[in-house]
Amino acid sequence: MNEFDLIREYFNWPSTDSNIVVGVGDDAAVVNVATSQQLVTSTDTLIEGVHFSSQVGPRDIAHKALAVNLSDIAAMGGRAKYFTLALSLPKIDEHWLGEFSSSMKQLAERFKISLVGGDTTKGPLSITINVIGTLEIGSALQRSGASPGDGVYVSNTIGSAAYAWWQLNNNQKPSKGNLEKLNRPIPRLELGRALNGIASACIDVSDGLEQDLGHILDCSNVGAIIELADLPLDEELSDYVKRTSDYSIALCGGDDYELCFSVPKRQREWLLKRLQEIDIRITQIGEITKSLGLEIKGYSNNSSSYQHFR
Amino acid sequence: MNEFDLIREYFNWPSTDSNIVVGVGDDAAVVNVATSQQLVTSTDTLIEGVHFSSQVGPRDIAHKALAVNLSDIAAMGGRAKYFTLALSLPKIDEHWLGEFSSSMKQLAERFKISLVGGDTTKGPLSITINVIGTLEIGSALQRSGASPGDGVYVSNTIGSAAYAWWQLNNNQKPSKGNLEKLNRPIPRLELGRALNGIASACIDVSDGLEQDLGHILDCSNVGAIIELADLPLDEELSDYVKRTSDYSIALCGGDDYELCFSVPKRQREWLLKRLQEIDIRITQIGEITKSLGLEIKGYSNNSSSYQHFR
Repeated sequence: MNEFDLIREYFNWPSTDSNIVVGVGDDAAVVNVATSQQLVTSTDTLIEGVHFSSQVGPRDIAHKALAVNLSDIAAMGGRAKYFTLALSLPKIDEHWLGEFSSSMKQLAERFKISLVGGDTTKGPLSITINVIGTLEIGSALQRSGASPGDGVYVSNTIGSAAYAWWQLNNNQKPSKGNLEKLNRPIPRLELGRALNGIASACIDVSDGLEQDLGHILDCSNVGAIIELADLPLDEELSDYVKRTSDYSIALCGGDDYELCFSVPKRQREWLLKRLQEIDIRITQIGEITKSLGLEIKGYSNNSSSYQHFR
Repeated sequence: MNEFDLIREYFNWPSTDSNIVVGVGDDAAVVNVATSQQLVTSTDTLIEGVHFSSQVGPRDIAHKALAVNLSDIAAMGGRAKYFTLALSLPKIDEHWLGEFSSSMKQLAERFKISLVGGDTTKGPLSITINVIGTLEIGSALQRSGASPGDGVYVSNTIGSAAYAWWQLNNNQKPSKGNLEKLNRPIPRLELGRALNGIASACIDVSDGLEQDLGHILDCSNVGAIIELADLPLDEELSDYVKRTSDYSIALCGGDDYELCFSVPKRQREWLLKRLQEIDIRITQIGEITKSLGLEIKGYSNNSSSYQHFR
C-alpha cells in the first residue's frame, strides 16, 4: 500500500460541508470563510512514548489527538471547522489504521469538523493535527482579560485524567470513567461557545490547573485566590485526597482538557442561564485578585505542573 | 529551559501583520480574513532519518521544512500568510535552536509569512508545519483542470535536487548549486501567483516529475506526451545523462519543488508577458493529450518515483 492508497482508503471521508472547495487529494485544501468571521487556528502533537504509551490502542490515540486540538479552539470560544492530519507511522498496519481512522471520523462527525488535508510519512508514531475554526470578529476568549473580582471557574472535574495515569503507573486500576477521561477527553466546544461574550479569560487545563490558571494570571497581570475545598474532584480522587492529603494530582496533573475561565460578577446570572442549554457542570473555585500570584488556601506541597522539557 | 521559555526565546517573532489578532502564546491564534478571499491550507512533515539525515544542519532543516509547505500553497496559486510549527526535539540544544529559528525567520520574512502558533515537545527530531494562505474566490490551481492541447511546463530545472542526493549517496561531491537546491529549495510563490487565471492545472514536483505529472493526468482524466530532449536539466545532471543515458533521476527524482503546470494555447502569450515581471525560467516539455497515460518519447527505464511506504 503506497501513500496515495493509504489516504484514499483511510482518510478520504465524504464531507457534507459545501464550503470545502478543494479537500483531501490536492496540494492544499481550499475553503470558504464567511464575512464577519475571524480564523482561529491551533496545532498539537502527540508522540508515542511521550504523550501515550505503546499500550494505548489506535482508537484512543486518534480520539485524543483530535480532541486536544479541538480543546484549544474551545478555549478560544471558537467553532471548529476543518483540520489537517500529519501522521507518521513506523509501518502500515491496516487493522490499526482502520481503527484509528474510524475513531477519528467518529469524533470529527460528533463535532461537525471536516478533514481537509494532511501528510503521511514513515517514521516514529506521531500525530500532529492543525485545526482551523471561526469566530465572530473580536470575540476570542484570550488569556489576558481577567480582572480583579472576576470569579474563577472550571468545568466538570479536574485531576481525573492525571489520577488515572498515576494509578496506571502505580499498579492500581483506574475507574472506567477516569480511564475514559485520560484516553478520550471531550473537548468543551459547546461550553467555549457559551462563554463567548461572557468569560473575561479562558484556557484549557492541559498542563494542570496551577500552571494553566497561572498563564491567565500572568497574561492578565492579576492574581487569584482559590480554595482547595472547592476543587471539583471525582469520587476516586476525592477518596485519595482524603487518605493522603495530597492535592498535587488535583492541582498539577495535566491532561484534563476541561476549561478554566474567569467571569465578571455581572455576567454570572447570564452564564448560568446559557449553561442550562448544555450538559456540563461548572464550579467556582476562587476569585481574581489585584495582588499578583496564585494563593491556594490550604496547600503546602511543592509538586510542579507537567512541562515537556524537564 | 522549559517549553514556554523556549517558545518565547526562539519562536515569538515580532510581526507587522495587523491582521494577526492573537499570535503565539495563547491556546490558538486568531487572524482576520478579507472578504472575497478563500482559505488555502496545507501540512507537511519532515522527520530525521526519513526526509533528511542526521548530517543536515539546523539552518537547512528549518528552511526546507517551511519551504516545502510554502511550495504547496504556490502550487495552488495562493498567497501564503500564516503558519504554525509543531517541533519535536530529542533535547534542548540552544545553539541548534538559535540557528533553526533564525533560518526559518529569514525565509518567513522573505515571503512575508507570519508564525502564529505551534507546539514543542520532546521526541524524535521532526517538524510539522501547517501553512494558511488566501486565494481570490474560485481561483485555485487544481490538479484537475488540464485539457487536451494544453502545453505542459516546468519551472527552472528538474532532477537537480535528486542528483545531489544521489551523488551524496554515491561518494560524489554535488555542485554547490545543486546541494542548495536539495537543502534550501525556493518555493515558487511568485510563479504560482502569476499562473493564477492562466494555468489550467498545477502541482509541485516533490515526488518526481513522472509521478507528479501523473497526478495531474489522473485528476484531469487526460494523458500527455513529453519529450526527453526538452527536459530542462542543469549542467551536472545533463553531463550525467549524456554519459549514462539514465533519465531516471530527471524523471523520477523528488525534492525539486519546482512547479509543473498545464497552460491552454490561447493563454501562452499572456503567460510569457506575466513572467517578464518575475525572475524564473519555464520550459515547455510536452502537451496534454486526449489518450490516457504518460508517453515519454525516448524513455524505457523502469525506475519508479519516490513513495514513502515502499
